[in-house]
Amino acid sequence: MNIILLSGGSGQRLWPLSNNIRSKQFIRIFSNEEGKLESMLTRVYRQIISADPEAVITIATSRKQISSIRNQLGDRVSVCAEPCRRDTFPAICLAASYLYYEQGVGEEEAVVVCPVDPYVEDSYFEALKELSGMAETGSANLFLLGIEPTYASEKYGYILPESSARVSKVETFREKPDAATAQGYIARGALWNGGVFAFRLGYLMRRAHELLSFTDYRDLYARYGELKRISFDYALAEQEKAVQVLRYNGGWKDLGTWNTFTEAMTEPVLGKGILNETCENTNVVNELNIPILCMGCRNMVVAASSDGILVSDKEQSSYIKPFVEQIEQQVMYAEKSWGSFTVLDVQEDSLTIKIVLLPGHGLYYHSHDHRDEVWTVMSGTGRAVIDGVERKVCAGDVISMPAGCRHTVSAETELKIIEVQMGENITVEDKHKYPLQQDGGECKPGLGTECGCGR
Amino acid sequence: MNIILLSGGSGQRLWPLSNNIRSKQFIRIFSNEEGKLESMLTRVYRQIISADPEAVITIATSRKQISSIRNQLGDRVSVCAEPCRRDTFPAICLAASYLYYEQGVGEEEAVVVCPVDPYVEDSYFEALKELSGMAETGSANLFLLGIEPTYASEKYGYILPESSARVSKVETFREKPDAATAQGYIARGALWNGGVFAFRLGYLMRRAHELLSFTDYRDLYARYGELKRISFDYALAEQEKAVQVLRYNGGWKDLGTWNTFTEAMTEPVLGKGILNETCENTNVVNELNIPILCMGCRNMVVAASSDGILVSDKEQSSYIKPFVEQIEQQVMYAEKSWGSFTVLDVQEDSLTIKIVLLPGHGLYYHSHDHRDEVWTVMSGTGRAVIDGVERKVCAGDVISMPAGCRHTVSAETELKIIEVQMGENITVEDKHKYPLQQDGGECKPGLGTECGCGR
Repeated sequence: MNIILLSGGSGQRLWPLSNNIRSKQFIRIFSNEEGKLESMLTRVYRQIISADPEAVITIATSRKQISSIRNQLGDRVSVCAEPCRRDTFPAICLAASYLYYEQGVGEEEAVVVCPVDPYVEDSYFEALKELSGMAETGSANLFLLGIEPTYASEKYGYILPESSARVSKVETFREKPDAATAQGYIARGALWNGGVFAFRLGYLMRRAHELLSFTDYRDLYARYGELKRISFDYALAEQEKAVQVLRYNGGWKDLGTWNTFTEAMTEPVLGKGILNETCENTNVVNELNIPILCMGCRNMVVAASSDGILVSDKEQSSYIKPFVEQIEQQVMYAEKSWGSFTVLDVQEDSLTIKIVLLPGHGLYYHSHDHRDEVWTVMSGTGRAVIDGVERKVCAGDVISMPAGCRHTVSAETELKIIEVQMGENITVEDKHKYPLQQDGGECKPGLGTECGCGR
Repeated sequence: MNIILLSGGSGQRLWPLSNNIRSKQFIRIFSNEEGKLESMLTRVYRQIISADPEAVITIATSRKQISSIRNQLGDRVSVCAEPCRRDTFPAICLAASYLYYEQGVGEEEAVVVCPVDPYVEDSYFEALKELSGMAETGSANLFLLGIEPTYASEKYGYILPESSARVSKVETFREKPDAATAQGYIARGALWNGGVFAFRLGYLMRRAHELLSFTDYRDLYARYGELKRISFDYALAEQEKAVQVLRYNGGWKDLGTWNTFTEAMTEPVLGKGILNETCENTNVVNELNIPILCMGCRNMVVAASSDGILVSDKEQSSYIKPFVEQIEQQVMYAEKSWGSFTVLDVQEDSLTIKIVLLPGHGLYYHSHDHRDEVWTVMSGTGRAVIDGVERKVCAGDVISMPAGCRHTVSAETELKIIEVQMGENITVEDKHKYPLQQDGGECKPGLGTECGCGR
């Protein structure tokens, strides 16, 4: 099965665990059977591979998510990053072109497109496999998965099928209705539109060339900024006559708000937290290293990360967005392709951060114009290059890098470093990158860069 | 007026802002008229000096509070620290002996004893002055301030006066009664016992020598560990026949729990915090540098410090103690006589802390057996001594101190330093102190040390 996972979304609704550079699909919050923590992304990846060990997975996303995807899945997936944000139709065309022109996937092969963040049972991916088979051999052009509604939701689009058979031709689509209208749809056998499409690649490429002007993947990538924002539903699905839908009646949840997100938690407390005996229906998600004590809390969610602390009534938590928008807070924690950084202390003219480098990974070779930096290596071993001179580093080593000094470090074993930045107006923009004339090859240019995977 | 402030208490009830080394009286939570934040200690100090600019203040406390007192009040008060914790009778005798034998206060002079943490109007200290005058010239031996009760509290002891006159002879004392009994006392004109006593110093010294076996202050200090734990009420006040009480009917609050503490807050939010419009009767006290967002919170207190985060229904918050006892957490922030430290990051074999040194202050000259340390100076200027060699330090300087290296640093201007400690089993016990052969004189021994003021 060829599968394109659409990974979009900003991080406001699940603040403070998600932020501008960490979307909800990267939060490690679910316990798997081995007791390890999974994110939506790693959970969905595991479920796909379990349903189809041969699945070829491409993640269609934005540039800013590449680091998190690489951090969580390494090289096990392809990443196709939009050069800028457009809507789902351009994004799916770009990813499909990547499969067709760069990966050599054939016109007759089926491709399934699916959001990266459904919280579903394993049977969902069995249904995707079935949908892929339908697309490969079926007579329709577009194949959808319809979710059996469990209530008259106003949050979802609806698919109205011609019949209530397991597989049916689609009569029409309806955008988010009010509850009464939704009830009427459901009485007629309507299904939620979960954003899953399958098609033969040749069909999609033909439609893409009809609707967009481009020659191949690289050309589409180059022209991407000129494309109109338009959804796949609107540009293609609603115009297509030959559409079939497959009913899915297994578990399916859209964990878009803290209220629904906490429903998927297997334990009430994740991280350091205590709920006293008078707490009811309360969840704690704590990424900080200090304890949270909750007393007499009812129907609440308490979430803490380096970015901030949310204390909210669960129902109120769905109105979080405007409040998060008014919080001007620098990103205090981020997963990167090479590991992670955490801001430990902010002063007027200095910033202290903790850098964790994964084995085999390194920073870009870079310099700053307006700040001095000092590294103190807490643990691990690696190699640093300072103004062209390579040296080994290990716990206890200290390296001072005045403004202008070119520097990088790579990890042999996991490397933990305290970096103190000192200067006026410290910004992430004050950074020059250089090619590294070393064997490490951390920043070789190539297709990887061109397709936006940033490695 | 000679005044002894009793500064005791552990920090569990106002966790996480108070902890084992920071009691509630040191939390800076009250806005004064200039908009600056005051602690109970600095507020009470300001009020005393406002009522009596000539007041001679001695703080009777335990050794572990000395740093916080010096940090907040510097040398403006005397500190008399018990070598170990006993109850109020030994503590008051020790402080009175310090005044009599070391400070030369005369037998005929009045001394007022008062808790360090009442949240009161300025008129309270006018009443203390009046009480001091009564003690100096009056015929009784002991003079108390009785608080006019505002409700039939079960939390306080009661003073039963012979009459309802403003000044009356005391008939008897009653320990914390149930509400019905308290109601009966109040009907008879009873007053809350707020722990304020005044006496002529000669009277107290005579009673002290009758009840305890010692020659002078230093002898009492040396024998202190052998003394019985006994309260001043029980040992002395309840035995004394000639006791008078002065009625006080101004504002008086005992801010012992979060519920009462938040009542004294002038704004609902202290520190970085947002309450959305659906919050009711909710307070945020945030010492962290990240924002707290509260949505739909009712009758709650949210308090955050480097030690932890409390999210509690206000009424429930009075039951916090056993939960805090089960939290095994190293102290993450502490005010010291020389400034403060904050733990920024805890790893298995390393610890990163931020040190802030106040101008003119320095650390002890010390070394560690089992850990290496690295200082990175973020800002400020000062002088360091490393293995006997003095050097200037300023922003950007880095000093590596392997295990065994003797080191200290003192601040000329406020000095901010990141210290990375590296080694197995890092503990505060791994520390050797040495005299510093310098002009700084940071650790001259003398009476200061002997009376436990630790400077």
